[in-house]
Amino acid sequence: MKVININQKLNLFSEYWNPKVIGELNGQLVKLAKFKDEFVWHKHDNEDELFYVLEGKLKIEFRDKEVSLNQGEFIIVPKGVEHKPIAIEECSVMLFEPKDTVNTGNVKNKLTQQELDNI
Amino acid sequence: MKVININQKLNLFSEYWNPKVIGELNGQLVKLAKFKDEFVWHKHDNEDELFYVLEGKLKIEFRDKEVSLNQGEFIIVPKGVEHKPIAIEECSVMLFEPKDTVNTGNVKNKLTQQELDNI
Repeated sequence: MKVININQKLNLFSEYWNPKVIGELNGQLVKLAKFKDEFVWHKHDNEDELFYVLEGKLKIEFRDKEVSLNQGEFIIVPKGVEHKPIAIEECSVMLFEPKDTVNTGNVKNKLTQQELDNI
Repeated sequence: MKVININQKLNLFSEYWNPKVIGELNGQLVKLAKFKDEFVWHKHDNEDELFYVLEGKLKIEFRDKEVSLNQGEFIIVPKGVEHKPIAIEECSVMLFEPKDTVNTGNVKNKLTQQELDNI
């Protein structure tokens, strides 16, 4: 049981689209990630996913609309909803989602991260 | 599915020790709360609880130690661990915890909030 400092954790990595685990509770993981450029269209069949913007701006495209999130804003993407995160400039986000969530959901490609680092 | 701005939500209430629900995913709730002065010693038998400090400082006493959290820091208190939050000055926190979590855990007193507002 220890105090986690978000900024200290953000300084420990620089790669994009590779979430790092910083906490676990009730079968859910708290993750940090850095995004830049475009991710892949995907959905999570069984997991809702929370994106909370810590730094920068995040755009998320859905099939019927797109939303923009600034620092201090979050969105919950329900299970089954296709989405595509886009960061025009680098952004840092906190993710909150079930332990089994894979970053690319139903898609498997070079961006897929099966094993996440704990930092 | 909407964008939630944390600061806008914090401006919607002022009472202490009365968490407000701002999101739900995977059976978990995202809550905001403002703390001032001392809470009650309690534990949650079945729920781990995350405290993330958004503004101010939070102290949490445990039976064998105490920790201080500054803005941008969080701690996960595992189920079954007795704790007592204390805010010398007002602080604002984000909480992640299962839907059924009651703020005073195993204790029922005037601080207990059975029905939480969604804001």
